[in-house]
Amino acid sequence: MSEAPSEQEGRPGVGRVEAFSDGVIAIIVTIMVLELHPPLSENMAKLWTLWPIFLAYVLSYAYVAIYWVNHHRLFSHATRVTNGLVWSNMLLLFALSLVPFSTSYLGEHRFSRETTWLYLATMLFPAVAYTWLQAVIRRTGKQGAAAEAYHVSSSRKGLFATALYLLGVALTFLSPWAGIGCAVIVAILWFLPDSRIDGLFARK
Amino acid sequence: MSEAPSEQEGRPGVGRVEAFSDGVIAIIVTIMVLELHPPLSENMAKLWTLWPIFLAYVLSYAYVAIYWVNHHRLFSHATRVTNGLVWSNMLLLFALSLVPFSTSYLGEHRFSRETTWLYLATMLFPAVAYTWLQAVIRRTGKQGAAAEAYHVSSSRKGLFATALYLLGVALTFLSPWAGIGCAVIVAILWFLPDSRIDGLFARK
Amino acid sequence: MSEAPSEQEGRPGVGRVEAFSDGVIAIIVTIMVLELHPPLSENMAKLWTLWPIFLAYVLSYAYVAIYWVNHHRLFSHATRVTNGLVWSNMLLLFALSLVPFSTSYLGEHRFSRETTWLYLATMLFPAVAYTWLQAVIRRTGKQGAAAEAYHVSSSRKGLFATALYLLGVALTFLSPWAGIGCAVIVAILWFLPDSRIDGLFARK
Amino acid sequence: MSEAPSEQEGRPGVGRVEAFSDGVIAIIVTIMVLELHPPLSENMAKLWTLWPIFLAYVLSYAYVAIYWVNHHRLFSHATRVTNGLVWSNMLLLFALSLVPFSTSYLGEHRFSRETTWLYLATMLFPAVAYTWLQAVIRRTGKQGAAAEAYHVSSSRKGLFATALYLLGVALTFLSPWAGIGCAVIVAILWFLPDSRIDGLFARK
Repeated sequence: MSEAPSEQEGRPGVGRVEAFSDGVIAIIVTIMVLELHPPLSENMAKLWTLWPIFLAYVLSYAYVAIYWVNHHRLFSHATRVTNGLVWSNMLLLFALSLVPFSTSYLGEHRFSRETTWLYLATMLFPAVAYTWLQAVIRRTGKQGAAAEAYHVSSSRKGLFATALYLLGVALTFLSPWAGIGCAVIVAILWFLPDSRIDGLFARK
Repeated sequence: MSEAPSEQEGRPGVGRVEAFSDGVIAIIVTIMVLELHPPLSENMAKLWTLWPIFLAYVLSYAYVAIYWVNHHRLFSHATRVTNGLVWSNMLLLFALSLVPFSTSYLGEHRFSRETTWLYLATMLFPAVAYTWLQAVIRRTGKQGAAAEAYHVSSSRKGLFATALYLLGVALTFLSPWAGIGCAVIVAILWFLPDSRIDGLFARK
Repeated sequence: MSEAPSEQEGRPGVGRVEAFSDGVIAIIVTIMVLELHPPLSENMAKLWTLWPIFLAYVLSYAYVAIYWVNHHRLFSHATRVTNGLVWSNMLLLFALSLVPFSTSYLGEHRFSRETTWLYLATMLFPAVAYTWLQAVIRRTGKQGAAAEAYHVSSSRKGLFATALYLLGVALTFLSPWAGIGCAVIVAILWFLPDSRIDGLFARK
Repeated sequence: MSEAPSEQEGRPGVGRVEAFSDGVIAIIVTIMVLELHPPLSENMAKLWTLWPIFLAYVLSYAYVAIYWVNHHRLFSHATRVTNGLVWSNMLLLFALSLVPFSTSYLGEHRFSRETTWLYLATMLFPAVAYTWLQAVIRRTGKQGAAAEAYHVSSSRKGLFATALYLLGVALTFLSPWAGIGCAVIVAILWFLPDSRIDGLFARK
């Protein structure tokens, strides 16, 4: 992120869009844990019955965290606040705000086929908003070879992730776990260091 | 927003009022989604029964998001923290904090006449606080032709929106959907790029 | 607040303590509205039965907002983060975090004598923490005549408010509304412009 | 914290990681108070039955507050955002997000042996993530004797705290209160001024 020597200077208003997004994403990621109600019995064996709710929380926490990390990196390329930037960002936050709902639905019905299908389909919505947001920042933000290389590599990575989610949505008809497997592969893809992965998606 | 070359310099304390407002608005916008309880049945056909709650959430998310965007733009004209600025802002945040309540009431009663009426009436309260806040910043904030043009155009836009909401409150007696239609028109008005709309409301 | 020409420069770490406090206070002020459950009936006449919960929310919102405004002003005098500053601030946030509890208790029992008594007693706890916080910042923060005048005036105002709350706690035995009246007087005292009130409490 | 002359300059992106962490930690610390439901009876004698829930809240508030204070100090040594920093920080926030769950379980079952055991065991998870985070910042952040001395002293303190928690987990088999006692000792250790404690853990 050597392209961003200073966070505040010369970026009027961008810091506040980031701060608002941080607030919304922090709340989304944290309210999901409220679904983890402790069992009435103090017998710890009963705790294991919570595994689907816990697993759904882990998956969604990772998913939202990945969006925050990408949002953080993408916004380091923004230089000014335009109407397009504000509203594509608001749409992204709206899309992410639905994740707690589908997570809760998935966990409570223990990864049933129908709720898994809805969960993976919901995961596609933020991808659409993010693509719009990235297009806005690519057009109105930092220019130059380094910025362009970042946008190309990042867009390819996003396209690949979206394709994997679509595959997951389809595979859910075979088995919910095949669908969840696709989501896990996407998460691992983002966890790996950028240097290792970015090479795969960089403009040749 | 070329009038705001730097966010922090020479604006003692303003950044913190913005940060606090961002926090409150982020929470307001996000806790509304907690009303979206997943149905007990995993049959996805049952999901459609949630449409009034979902639609109410979409309307209110858009409404609060519009306030954030306007707040963001308005505060770029603030230069110092006065008693009037702090308390008019606190009143605005209080008024917005009632939106989750009227949204939940509207959704649960499926856009009935009475709840629609209350919903639209609640929407008028933040407008009063915002008008006060804008008057404070117009008096104590940045001065000059550009700032004045912004305040004039923005006040006219706000007055027009308030008139539409009042029309909506009245039309609800005919049909709740006529009232909701007015709220949707106001939202579209704000989504459109400033350049296109501002011309209509600029000082001639 | 002319004593604070720049928020960030030369105040290592203070900005983050402010940001964390803003987050906690924003959440406290906002989660209280979650107690306002819409009535099951869509008959709007039923809404009036919510008045004690609404009134308790209004009182507590004003109370927490006043603390934020004072915190904001006090921290503009802080210059460095010490152990005392962090922990007195954490105690203040803890004390404020109990307000939603006593507010909910007060509203649900419709301003009964016992819950009013507890509500007013809870209001005294943040005052203790604030006094400690102010003593820390007075000792480790900005020095000089202007800072000293602020601390003297602000401490006197705080002492007067605390005395009024104590009077309220006592008067509750006569009538809950006499106790609530004291809390309302304190709130009005803080809402008034600083210039008008500060004169009363300034060092003669 | 004299090592941190300026918060923003030359630390691209670090401020946003701090802001996001502040948001998440502020929410974690505040939602725990939502477990404190006021009793249905207005008889204040009934309030005393809430003591286990209140005590669990106090312990967890102190625990999370200590993490925030350490996080604050540790991040003043960070100079750039790496993949390792972002993900070790995300893991720490995830680990802390489980605290409200184990707190609620502990309080509702009134410090029973099994829930105390789980509570103390959960407290060990953030320690693992924090150790990773500290290793990342030690490698990629500020270098020099002062930074190194901080990391050595802080790691030793962390190791000692972890050992005490492990002891607590073991002692719970004897008595839950012996386990809770260990957690209280750890908290007191962190509350004391750095100068007094740091001497014990400084590199000799």
